This record gives sequence, structure tokens and C-alpha cells, in this order.
Amino acid sequence: MATATDRAAGLVLDAAAQDLLFRQARSASEFADAPVSEAQLQAIYGLVKYGPTALNQQPLRIIAVRSGQAMERLMRHLNERNRGKTAGAPLTLILAADIDFHERLPQVFSHAPGLRDVLAADREDRVTQARFNATLQIGYLIVGVRAAGLAAGPMIGFDAAALDRDFFPGGSLQSLLVMNVGYPRAKRFARLPRLAYEDVVQAM
Amino acid sequence: MATATDRAAGLVLDAAAQDLLFRQARSASEFADAPVSEAQLQAIYGLVKYGPTALNQQPLRIIAVRSGQAMERLMRHLNERNRGKTAGAPLTLILAADIDFHERLPQVFSHAPGLRDVLAADREDRVTQARFNATLQIGYLIVGVRAAGLAAGPMIGFDAAALDRDFFPGGSLQSLLVMNVGYPRAKRFARLPRLAYEDVVQAM
Repeated sequence: MATATDRAAGLVLDAAAQDLLFRQARSASEFADAPVSEAQLQAIYGLVKYGPTALNQQPLRIIAVRSGQAMERLMRHLNERNRGKTAGAPLTLILAADIDFHERLPQVFSHAPGLRDVLAADREDRVTQARFNATLQIGYLIVGVRAAGLAAGPMIGFDAAALDRDFFPGGSLQSLLVMNVGYPRAKRFARLPRLAYEDVVQAM
Repeated sequence: MATATDRAAGLVLDAAAQDLLFRQARSASEFADAPVSEAQLQAIYGLVKYGPTALNQQPLRIIAVRSGQAMERLMRHLNERNRGKTAGAPLTLILAADIDFHERLPQVFSHAPGLRDVLAADREDRVTQARFNATLQIGYLIVGVRAAGLAAGPMIGFDAAALDRDFFPGGSLQSLLVMNVGYPRAKRFARLPRLAYEDVVQAM
């Protein structure tokens, strides 16, 4: 819950938006039956695509799993607990980093035309960069899901290597997170404690 | 710039907040002289600390560099271009992952008391988890900086190994990003293009 002190100083964002995106928002593992439309996913992407990435590389790729066959394949790679959560979600996203993001740099970072070829020669560096920047983008995406009035249920409990072999046999995509999206059922648990400012921020 | 179509469907977040956090927000490399207060940084953390992390591990640590001596040390690890940007910024943050985040799990994830010892035995796994989740938190932090009406200037152009040896000799922190924070000077460049929905999202 927000307190008067939390909001007293320093933020420009209005209180309703603070609540929607952070203070009242919660990860969800159980969802209502209501669907999440393609238009909603487009609106979310249309907002969070503006979040910054290094060299504007935008390596995040999103596989939106809705069909029975794709869901059946995905389920095999989730741990037992996450299978249960996912079975009840209207939409599940595989969030992956595109290791070949450099192929698009001439389009999205056109003022450094040589960069694509430099990166083409160093796959290991591309893996590091793609995974880091796609993870930043997942942070923005979680905020964006909430901006649509939905809840995200991010899950790390899956066999990433097996999922990648199955869904991304070409080797250019690496999965980072599987995330359910939907309208949450009632919250069942109290929010877990957060670290205090003094535990996290050190002034020098 | 936001268009009517962007906003037409799907989002609950009000248009002013969409502009503040994503559509009108820009990374900054030149800043006005106005300072960023400790109270502002506290307000930003007080908002973004609610962003989710796996196991509630919250591995992000923030070194707020303001003093001349600390800044001199930091400057040595930045590339030339980023030295110039940082010299004109009122506040610079070293954003790092705490590899020993497991020490706090009894406090922040108390319903799984054995987890701390399991993770204590596997440093490599902790490095992976800490870096991934701290990067997610950097995504939230960039949104939070904007929620305070400020601009972020994230920089990957630094010698992370040298910075870590200098600032984190104990080995439990690993730097991920150096980020300037302040009030931006006027935007000089057009926004770089973003990938289209069809290039990023695939339905299955």
C-alpha cells in the first residue's frame, strides 16, 4: 500500500499511475477467464517499444502462445508448478533475445553503418548484449502489461535449452522468460517485503 | 510522438503518464545544471522497488556518485565519450548486481527457509540470477527516473572488470550499467526508429 510519505516528494507521475504500474500491481499466478486480445498486445508493444536499449538494438522477441498445439509444446518445457499456472492463463508469452539483432542495425541505428559487420564477427558479444538489452525490455514490458490493466506472471521455472531447441531450432533466439498475461484473480498472498533504501543505495 | 491510433485501444494508463514514461521520454547525454536531490532518488526507489523479481531476490544495488573523489575514480573506467557526458551530469549511478543476494532471502522470501543454503552452494547460478533480475530492475529504474520528471542516460561504454576491481574489491557486486540522471537539455536528435509489432511479435 502506498503511504502519504511514499508520495510526498520527488515524483511527477500521478498517484493513480503509480498505483497501476507499481504500488498496487502484483504478479499473478491465477487468472480470470477473460481473454487478452491481439489489440491489447499491440497497444502494450506500441507503448513499451520506446524504452531505451543500447545502440537502439531492440533485441526482444515475443512469441504469443494461444493455440492448443503450441501450448502443448510449451507445457512440456515448464516445471510442474508453472504448468498449472499456465493452463489457467489466457495468454502466455515466450520472451527471447534475438542474437542476430545486428542484422537490423542498418535500419534502427543507421548513422553507424559499419556496426553491423563488426558485430557479425563476434557472436559471443552479441549474445551478451542481446540478453542484457532484451532483459531491460522485459522490465519495460512488465510495466506495459500493467499499463493495459492486466497482470503479468513471469516464470523462470522452465528448461530453457529444451524450449530453445524446440521453438528456435535456428539458434538465433534464446529464451529468457516465460510470462503469463491476463486479468488476475483476487490476490491471495500479502506482498513480500522490499529492501529498504539504505540496504540498496550507497552514496559516495 | 503519440498518435491517436497508438492510444486508441488497449491501455488503461492515462495519456500524460504514457508520454512521461515512454512516448515523450528520451535518453539524455547533456543535462541542465539543476541538481538531483537525495529525496528524489529516495522517491524513485520507493516506487520502483515494487517491480517484481524472481524469488523476490531484488539483487540490484545502486552506488550514487556525487563526490569529486568518487567521480574521479569512476571517470577512469569510462570511455572518452562517456566521460564527457558524465562530467556534465548532476548525478551518476553505478548499477550493480549483488551476487550474494541469497543472504537476504530469509528476510525477503521467508516462506522458503532452505533456499539460502541451496543458493549458497552454487555461485555460478547466483551470478546468472543476480545479473538477470538486477537488469529487470534497471528497466524499472529507468521508468522510475522518468516518473520523477528526470531523464536517464544509460551507458555501456565502460570497463566493467576494472570498475568492479576498484569499487567492489570484495567480489560480491558486479556492475551492469553506469547511468547519468538529471534534467535534460533540449533534445538534439530525432528519435531513432523502433521495430514494428510484426517484426517483434509472432503468434503461435
